[in-house]
Amino acid sequence: MDAPRIAIDAMGGDGSAATMLAGAALALTRFPDLRFLIVGDDAAIQAELARHKALAAASEILHAPEAISGDDKPSQAIRRAKTTSMGLAIQAVKEREVGAAVSAGNTGALMAMAKLALRTLPGIDRPALAAIMPTLGDNDVVMLDLGANTECDANNLVQFALMGAAYSRVALDIEKPKTALLNIGSEELKGTDELKEAAAKLRAHPSLPLEFVGNIEADRINRGAVDVVVSDGFSGNIALKAVEGTARFVTDLLRRSFSSSLRSKVGFLISRPAMHLLRVHLDPNNHNGAVFLGLNGIVVKSHGSADAKGVANAIAVAAKLVRDDLNRLIAEDMAEYRAASTPVQAA
Amino acid sequence: MDAPRIAIDAMGGDGSAATMLAGAALALTRFPDLRFLIVGDDAAIQAELARHKALAAASEILHAPEAISGDDKPSQAIRRAKTTSMGLAIQAVKEREVGAAVSAGNTGALMAMAKLALRTLPGIDRPALAAIMPTLGDNDVVMLDLGANTECDANNLVQFALMGAAYSRVALDIEKPKTALLNIGSEELKGTDELKEAAAKLRAHPSLPLEFVGNIEADRINRGAVDVVVSDGFSGNIALKAVEGTARFVTDLLRRSFSSSLRSKVGFLISRPAMHLLRVHLDPNNHNGAVFLGLNGIVVKSHGSADAKGVANAIAVAAKLVRDDLNRLIAEDMAEYRAASTPVQAA
Repeated sequence: MDAPRIAIDAMGGDGSAATMLAGAALALTRFPDLRFLIVGDDAAIQAELARHKALAAASEILHAPEAISGDDKPSQAIRRAKTTSMGLAIQAVKEREVGAAVSAGNTGALMAMAKLALRTLPGIDRPALAAIMPTLGDNDVVMLDLGANTECDANNLVQFALMGAAYSRVALDIEKPKTALLNIGSEELKGTDELKEAAAKLRAHPSLPLEFVGNIEADRINRGAVDVVVSDGFSGNIALKAVEGTARFVTDLLRRSFSSSLRSKVGFLISRPAMHLLRVHLDPNNHNGAVFLGLNGIVVKSHGSADAKGVANAIAVAAKLVRDDLNRLIAEDMAEYRAASTPVQAA
Repeated sequence: MDAPRIAIDAMGGDGSAATMLAGAALALTRFPDLRFLIVGDDAAIQAELARHKALAAASEILHAPEAISGDDKPSQAIRRAKTTSMGLAIQAVKEREVGAAVSAGNTGALMAMAKLALRTLPGIDRPALAAIMPTLGDNDVVMLDLGANTECDANNLVQFALMGAAYSRVALDIEKPKTALLNIGSEELKGTDELKEAAAKLRAHPSLPLEFVGNIEADRINRGAVDVVVSDGFSGNIALKAVEGTARFVTDLLRRSFSSSLRSKVGFLISRPAMHLLRVHLDPNNHNGAVFLGLNGIVVKSHGSADAKGVANAIAVAAKLVRDDLNRLIAEDMAEYRAASTPVQAA
């Protein structure tokens, strides 16, 4: 396969073109065969490319007269698909001019535009938003859906499990990902009817390229015992935000504790390398890039506040998903699942 | 009002009678007018009371031949209400022999037994499980429902808001608690239909003894900006567990970081007072005692792994709710809400 070409929405995110292009330049130093279509205000992009010669040589610019703002509602955004950097980056994915699009802009707008332009893969009813989170174990964990679908039925959850497992196989090189449903107890009878039905369906297909391990509670997500955690978008978003908020809460408390006395200030200075390790592990820039799974095309959402390193990580994720053809895997797994689910005629 | 008399389920929790009675003894040193009904195996209780003379003088024993185990299903437990320490402690609340019951046993069993024996307060359709969590602000935050009800309608959520606010007023002395709905966005149009309808109902009653502040996302729960966070039991349980798991995750990471080099070990020793502050703040024993709100009687669940200090805190919570007559407040607020919700005849 040719080297991946990635569309970059240069106008989204807190740092706008400067951060997005610095991220692309950094990604290029790590993967010199990448090529880019940089979408946004031509003058702003030219100005930034002047500072990144190698990137300029590897990029083409697509001018977009407008940008989607953080306040734009998804319904407003989709009407501006042909004039905005976000819309045109997705359009380039649709027309196969690029293998993937990366944007740090408004998540709701990106999701709505991508869904409308790219449509879902065969067998997938709804796309899901997936992210990779750190754990105490050897492997990171994939979580989905993180907010694309407020309510989900059992079939949606099964499709998310297949998509999440495929993502884990490609992005984290885990052969048969341990996959669990996010629930309020580990017992089989816990939770909503949708969860119980999804569990029954997953249990009935032991040949799937994942190991279904039942329910997981939210306090075990980060323990490293499972590779994929599946939920509806409401619960997943609550869990993700609670994790993010608590990590910040604890580090804020630590900072406060450390500045409470001279002695602990000295302790802080001496233990700075340890604190640095912690910060590196918790820094979302090291785990940047939420992916919309289930669409006919790869769209990666970089965190709005990500720095150049974070953007480069999001681009690296996008490139890997293109190279390893994630969507072919998902389509194959869904076809196999659906074939196996068809009741066989009695002999 | 007479000094509160509290029923103690002596047989629940990891530490069983030893921890529960040590906790009661500790609570008695803080509140010398408390009186206890200690329910459980007579011999085990006698043996422990021999070590707590003051507690023995303030206590009566009620022998229970059996105990509910952590594995008992709620449906099995309720059949053993008359023979188990948990069941008899709740029965004592029902018969007004005590003002409240405290148990560290099986949550599902406790909830099922309490609901069946005590029934709900007038105007309350379903009880909810509420807990108090630390924040970065000056006040702790009340969260409910934490798992009593997997699915909830708008009326349930409104009732939880009223119960949670009454709990905040009594337990945390907050006059008009800032009350929010847990949601996946702060905008009015986010989330499920139930949440939107509950928001509309709460907004329509500005005279309630709470300040409805709209939606809150899970990453803001611990920031200290709101006093009460309302959710269905599924979302609330996910959020609570995610918070607990992440706090443990970060402290585990810290411990690992600190032991990664001699330098950081030295730093750890010097900064131990700061770490101690952090541990005190995060220690669930300092925030122990989840309460079943909405029942005709006070039932407090102490954490299964709580130590004597944790049990004493749960008992202190129970005593305060009895003294300040939480349930009278809830019943009054519900009556007022229902009166104000009745459409007034046009003049």
